[in-house]
Amino acid sequence: MTAARRPLRVTVWNEYVHERREESVKRIYPEGMHRPIADGIRRELGGDVTIRVATLDEPQHGLTEEALAQTDVLTWWGHAAHDKVDDAVVERVHARVLDGMGIVVLHSGHYSKIFRRLMGTSCSLRWRSDPGGEREVIWSVNPAHPIAAGVPQPIVIPHQEMYGEFFDIPPPDELVFISSYEGGEVFRSGCCYIRGAGRVFYFAPADQEFPAYHQPDVQRVIANAVAWCAGAVRSNNESVKSSGNAPRDWFLSAKVT
Amino acid sequence: MTAARRPLRVTVWNEYVHERREESVKRIYPEGMHRPIADGIRRELGGDVTIRVATLDEPQHGLTEEALAQTDVLTWWGHAAHDKVDDAVVERVHARVLDGMGIVVLHSGHYSKIFRRLMGTSCSLRWRSDPGGEREVIWSVNPAHPIAAGVPQPIVIPHQEMYGEFFDIPPPDELVFISSYEGGEVFRSGCCYIRGAGRVFYFAPADQEFPAYHQPDVQRVIANAVAWCAGAVRSNNESVKSSGNAPRDWFLSAKVT
Amino acid sequence: MTAARRPLRVTVWNEYVHERREESVKRIYPEGMHRPIADGIRRELGGDVTIRVATLDEPQHGLTEEALAQTDVLTWWGHAAHDKVDDAVVERVHARVLDGMGIVVLHSGHYSKIFRRLMGTSCSLRWRSDPGGEREVIWSVNPAHPIAAGVPQPIVIPHQEMYGEFFDIPPPDELVFISSYEGGEVFRSGCCYIRGAGRVFYFAPADQEFPAYHQPDVQRVIANAVAWCAGAVRSNNESVKSSGNAPRDWFLSAKVT
Amino acid sequence: MTAARRPLRVTVWNEYVHERREESVKRIYPEGMHRPIADGIRRELGGDVTIRVATLDEPQHGLTEEALAQTDVLTWWGHAAHDKVDDAVVERVHARVLDGMGIVVLHSGHYSKIFRRLMGTSCSLRWRSDPGGEREVIWSVNPAHPIAAGVPQPIVIPHQEMYGEFFDIPPPDELVFISSYEGGEVFRSGCCYIRGAGRVFYFAPADQEFPAYHQPDVQRVIANAVAWCAGAVRSNNESVKSSGNAPRDWFLSAKVT
Repeated sequence: MTAARRPLRVTVWNEYVHERREESVKRIYPEGMHRPIADGIRRELGGDVTIRVATLDEPQHGLTEEALAQTDVLTWWGHAAHDKVDDAVVERVHARVLDGMGIVVLHSGHYSKIFRRLMGTSCSLRWRSDPGGEREVIWSVNPAHPIAAGVPQPIVIPHQEMYGEFFDIPPPDELVFISSYEGGEVFRSGCCYIRGAGRVFYFAPADQEFPAYHQPDVQRVIANAVAWCAGAVRSNNESVKSSGNAPRDWFLSAKVT
Repeated sequence: MTAARRPLRVTVWNEYVHERREESVKRIYPEGMHRPIADGIRRELGGDVTIRVATLDEPQHGLTEEALAQTDVLTWWGHAAHDKVDDAVVERVHARVLDGMGIVVLHSGHYSKIFRRLMGTSCSLRWRSDPGGEREVIWSVNPAHPIAAGVPQPIVIPHQEMYGEFFDIPPPDELVFISSYEGGEVFRSGCCYIRGAGRVFYFAPADQEFPAYHQPDVQRVIANAVAWCAGAVRSNNESVKSSGNAPRDWFLSAKVT
Repeated sequence: MTAARRPLRVTVWNEYVHERREESVKRIYPEGMHRPIADGIRRELGGDVTIRVATLDEPQHGLTEEALAQTDVLTWWGHAAHDKVDDAVVERVHARVLDGMGIVVLHSGHYSKIFRRLMGTSCSLRWRSDPGGEREVIWSVNPAHPIAAGVPQPIVIPHQEMYGEFFDIPPPDELVFISSYEGGEVFRSGCCYIRGAGRVFYFAPADQEFPAYHQPDVQRVIANAVAWCAGAVRSNNESVKSSGNAPRDWFLSAKVT
Repeated sequence: MTAARRPLRVTVWNEYVHERREESVKRIYPEGMHRPIADGIRRELGGDVTIRVATLDEPQHGLTEEALAQTDVLTWWGHAAHDKVDDAVVERVHARVLDGMGIVVLHSGHYSKIFRRLMGTSCSLRWRSDPGGEREVIWSVNPAHPIAAGVPQPIVIPHQEMYGEFFDIPPPDELVFISSYEGGEVFRSGCCYIRGAGRVFYFAPADQEFPAYHQPDVQRVIANAVAWCAGAVRSNNESVKSSGNAPRDWFLSAKVT
């Protein structure tokens, strides 16, 4: 209501390494994992978004100051090349999140520099990647959370890598999904955080070895998460964020809307 | 995005007692407190809402089963007549909140049956109502919360009743506003809760003896809160709420979207 | 440190219905479920506690004003006779929790009047009780929470009733345990709440048809929960709880420790 | 109960710069701010603690691997020399917190490298340091929190620097204190966080220019916070923290206590 309704500007970031060097991954994601991620966001949010793809190999990983200024929500997939992400770019993304950009961190992105920077913890977890994977069942524990809108309870992913607790993250500000795996492990697989004026969502699916990003319900959750982040983008109240030296009664003389 | 965009149906509920029996209140709110509350919601949300007013004196307080079924968000002001609200109506409102209706509880509504029922605590607090009141300064601690969108940091209410801690509520699921008063007290004055599929917002201003409901920023917060509640209304996922006996593997045979 | 170190006074409450009328239950819990619960608390907390058992059949269910005044932590098991618990007793227990008594609610106690009263929600859930039950695996998501101290990660219960999401409770103030079941369901099985000056812990195991209360790790969690509640008992700060009319500058003239 | 009851090992860390170079500070804290901080902890916790002081000038700031391994709870005061704290030491302290050490961060420590590292946000705030300061009134919003045990409601600090919202921290896992200042600002002045197996407490008082660390109630809160951190130290469950590759059914063959 109170904010402009221009299309949301989404940057889908992918390290794009596995898909180019491993045959098994290339077969599942011939155009890169960013493709089904972007396609799902476009299908769900349509004219409400413009989407740009950026990858590790681009100068500054495609995340220049200007590119970030033009980004409302960033999605992040990385795994093999976390260490190759430049620290200066990480600091820039971090500052932009605190300033109000949303970020949706996917699967192995739990170990990315940016996610660990935002969380302040190790973000370690248990994992198991057996050939063929195992069934993951994703349960929502918040029936009216916008990120769970329109998806079945539960979402079943037939073949997936196992991610299990203890997941070393701060207690989520809102917990949306919990997964179970065939082996009996559980995982907090959909976690919301407020950081500064920005919103952060971590979503556990999917892995380069498994086709879950082609699954419509997984795509829908990612699109919902992008839209949820937009809630902060559109309500970002600059006057709240001010800091620094404040003379006595400064707010009495301030221009009041 | 993913949910229907019909206008939000808002019911503004007011016990409407003080304004009819006390001259001092009548002067401030000649048409009842519900009037500036409704006017502010209409001004901010415009065509996105339809508004109905309901009061204590109506049959079933204007909150019949049918009326509630047609309500997406309910605002609640009560004080002198909390005990006159029928228990059956309270149970009905309570069930409707868990089912997904939003509720915005205002000021002395902290002691209403419905708020205490939803909170599970005593909802007691400190208070002081000196003639002329005292300055309340409302600070947001969440710069991108939609309920704080578009209002100054801080909101200054020149004359208001004091509400102070300890406020016996559960720790808020999201804390949006903290107030200070001239006397030095503080108060968690803007508190969000998730209850079932519904959202609850408590907002401390204003009192029957003070004109704060005519103040545009206070009206805007109430309108923002109504819109925030709508987030749950529009994303309410019926499939999540199911409960009861569940045979083994029930979800494998369920129709999946 | 700051509080007296007298033994903690624990009341183990059991409706004690199934164990007396059903042979299958009698075989598992010949002396009532309260027996292994009390035994486990005594084994773990030893001289730090005194334990009393109270049951539904006693006058006022053994929960008179005086009995509650002498109780620091109450554990609650009920199922078949929730409706037989007197409303006046429920109100009394509720007030005592807000005043600082701890309460540990077990398994089917999720549907007890007192738990629903404290939560403000329906507390409904999914369930399945197949003959022989199914394996429940309990994971801690908080490695330093006192309630998870000294138990293995995970705790495995070989045969148990299934309790699954969505569990209609407020978001826990601290989430300690999440369970998975053989059928693939998950459940927030260890949940902490702060309510007034009291602490509430809900723990999902165990059922009258399964012997989990004889399992040392389950007993240890219950004992840990009792000790965790004691943290609030021992730090209860009466001066914080005061409410009511507060004249300007009241705290400047107050006697300060 | 479940953990050893050896004395808690506390390290009081102070950058110790202002007290040696500024006369105004030297007059208030002639032996350094660490002295009244340590004295207060000793007075309140007595034989339950051993205390060591460490300062910036020592090799590795007195925070060697060995020193940290021997520390259960660290208190941190810094301001003028945040940038002089070695990054390697910060990483070491950070890892030790995740491993279970408690940390109590005081006043201007909000801008220390270690606090910002743990929070993942900018930790900026408003401030005002007028000559003579202004009255800070500290209110507890959690009557049974151990950190508020035994202190008056409210604690009044006659002369103090103003710290005001917005304070750019993650929403606290538990909010214990909110302060108001004479100028009308508010501040979340007592904030608890769980990070890994460690506990973090931020407490806003006091400043080098004001004598609040000599005030018994302020000392008591710090001592309470040290003891609260000990709750995690004593219940740290190593088996929960394990991460890495986990073969199917690993937990069924694990030795179970």
